[in-house]
Amino acid sequence: MNSKFKSYYAVIFTSIQKKNIEGYAEMANKMEELAKKQFGYLGIDSSKSDIGITVSYWESLEAIKNWKQQTEHLEAQQQGRTKWYSWYKVRICKVEREYEFSSIDN
Amino acid sequence: MNSKFKSYYAVIFTSIQKKNIEGYAEMANKMEELAKKQFGYLGIDSSKSDIGITVSYWESLEAIKNWKQQTEHLEAQQQGRTKWYSWYKVRICKVEREYEFSSIDN
Repeated sequence: MNSKFKSYYAVIFTSIQKKNIEGYAEMANKMEELAKKQFGYLGIDSSKSDIGITVSYWESLEAIKNWKQQTEHLEAQQQGRTKWYSWYKVRICKVEREYEFSSIDN
Repeated sequence: MNSKFKSYYAVIFTSIQKKNIEGYAEMANKMEELAKKQFGYLGIDSSKSDIGITVSYWESLEAIKNWKQQTEHLEAQQQGRTKWYSWYKVRICKVEREYEFSSIDN
């Protein structure tokens, strides 16, 4: 464990999409580019199979709140609810510890 | 927001697998079944595309620690490092807030 570890925040976004998700990919890319420019943004991980899981990482709760209220993001959220998602859940989390593994033969 | 919300914990496991993952699916299923029987287990979400993201939910840090040290799980972790994963990262998080959306037409 890194003794210099400084806690940060993660937003876990789990979702189920509708069958017709026209326009979704473009919007997702646009929002990812926009998020990267936000104050306090640290990174994002995303994967999708039966459900989608996107985890974004942030320096503070304030940064998360600012991003949630960003004008273009508000519009994207609205479109998400009406067009693309049949269900989603958002969890705001404080990352308290972390550790990492890298294979020596990779 | 639910005023009766009781905080809990999430373990975010992000990973990159090797090309040959023989035996992985069986072990993953076995571990999921085993996790469900653990004290303090609340649920799991999993998806995989370029990277894998698995988030498991737990009542307490003690429950997470117990699961990490469970005998068969220790063996699975060891095999994961030698056989299946080229990289992984584990984040232990406290879920502080959550909200959910369900489409009315779905």
